[in-house]
Amino acid sequence: MPRYRLTIEYNGTSFAGWQIQANGATVQARLQAAVSAFTGESVTVHGAGRTDAGVHALGQVAHLDLQRDWPPEIVQNAINAKLRPDPVAIIKCSLAPPDFQARFDATARHYLYRILNRRAPAALDAHRVWHWIGKLDAEAMHAGAQMLVGRHDFTTFRSAHCQSASPVKTLDRLDVSRRGEEIHVEASARSFMHNQVRSMVGSLKLVGEGRWPPVRMARALAARDRAACGMVAPPDGLYLVRVDY
Amino acid sequence: MPRYRLTIEYNGTSFAGWQIQANGATVQARLQAAVSAFTGESVTVHGAGRTDAGVHALGQVAHLDLQRDWPPEIVQNAINAKLRPDPVAIIKCSLAPPDFQARFDATARHYLYRILNRRAPAALDAHRVWHWIGKLDAEAMHAGAQMLVGRHDFTTFRSAHCQSASPVKTLDRLDVSRRGEEIHVEASARSFMHNQVRSMVGSLKLVGEGRWPPVRMARALAARDRAACGMVAPPDGLYLVRVDY
Repeated sequence: MPRYRLTIEYNGTSFAGWQIQANGATVQARLQAAVSAFTGESVTVHGAGRTDAGVHALGQVAHLDLQRDWPPEIVQNAINAKLRPDPVAIIKCSLAPPDFQARFDATARHYLYRILNRRAPAALDAHRVWHWIGKLDAEAMHAGAQMLVGRHDFTTFRSAHCQSASPVKTLDRLDVSRRGEEIHVEASARSFMHNQVRSMVGSLKLVGEGRWPPVRMARALAARDRAACGMVAPPDGLYLVRVDY
Repeated sequence: MPRYRLTIEYNGTSFAGWQIQANGATVQARLQAAVSAFTGESVTVHGAGRTDAGVHALGQVAHLDLQRDWPPEIVQNAINAKLRPDPVAIIKCSLAPPDFQARFDATARHYLYRILNRRAPAALDAHRVWHWIGKLDAEAMHAGAQMLVGRHDFTTFRSAHCQSASPVKTLDRLDVSRRGEEIHVEASARSFMHNQVRSMVGSLKLVGEGRWPPVRMARALAARDRAACGMVAPPDGLYLVRVDY
């Protein structure tokens, strides 16, 4: 049974997240239905990361096994045809080693969070950015972000629903920069806990407003207490950009 | 009666174009309804360019007159509030001289056309790009485009429905470049005729495929005949970027 590795782009606005569930359309369910419409097989599409409702992907990675040895271009084109008109597309497809595991073999996950920081709401990028009117100081946010980089107990920035075995993770990168009207937060780590990026961004927004000094990020982290976290940023601005192996 | 100048961003996908009409939602009608909901006045919002159904704007410009001398920030915020949740936003608002005319005073209009040139369809950018699978040669397209720059009779690239008095226009810029998976066509002129950018892009696509040599653009232009034009590119990839005064 050949194993395929898929790289997937999707607009998460209309989905209840990646992972299949009893109620609501999910990206995983949509992909599995498309595969079934193509080959007739009931397969599991195993993703590298379980993005939440409303979160987007530029480069989610997944693997699946098929009965027949189809050329990867055929698999890509056929699944894409069956996905229409939904906003999900296989942007790359290749044969993978039989033991390749999209989730467990990943060595790094890269996320982007976009804040549209202007008076007017988003028209062209509605549901694709977090709109915040008050001027944010990207340099102060970046200074605060650096206090989270490294190996730490991230309990403060973890959802109550997080299923991760340990709250100790290594955050490799958390860069904040201004790009015209937008603030971009770029986060990289081997793995993240549930809501971790959105929780970090929500607290960094308080730093950007001047309501928290940058050093308060270090104090929030050290508290190891969910109550020390600021708000959780909305899903709209979050993108799973790339997964490394 | 104070006159206001508005800069407007919109996603044209769900609109039957800019200009008000008997059937279908238009951006102009939506704006006029928002103004009416704000001040109770029936106004005309005069736009700089009549974008077609499905065409987007990053910086359409318009003017309107109000009875009362509202501060521009109040006008902007109030209209934006009344536009929700539709994908139209006033991104700038200022007081204009009483004789300012958004359409007739414009000295240059700048358009961008985005072609997504890859195997997979657009997921995140669905309805915001023209998806073309076959590899396009941006350098050949740019070479062909240069044959259209200057003052010419653009009858070949004009819609049968065009109401422009003369087909002679000066095209200041038509640059084609590759940006990763996308081909960008950037067009600037004092004014364009109906469907002119989409007609030029449709023919340039034939050059990019190698079906037309670049010099055929010059021959098509010289023919001054609509039948010498290639297909008209779809509206999805077209953006009115900026209007100069």
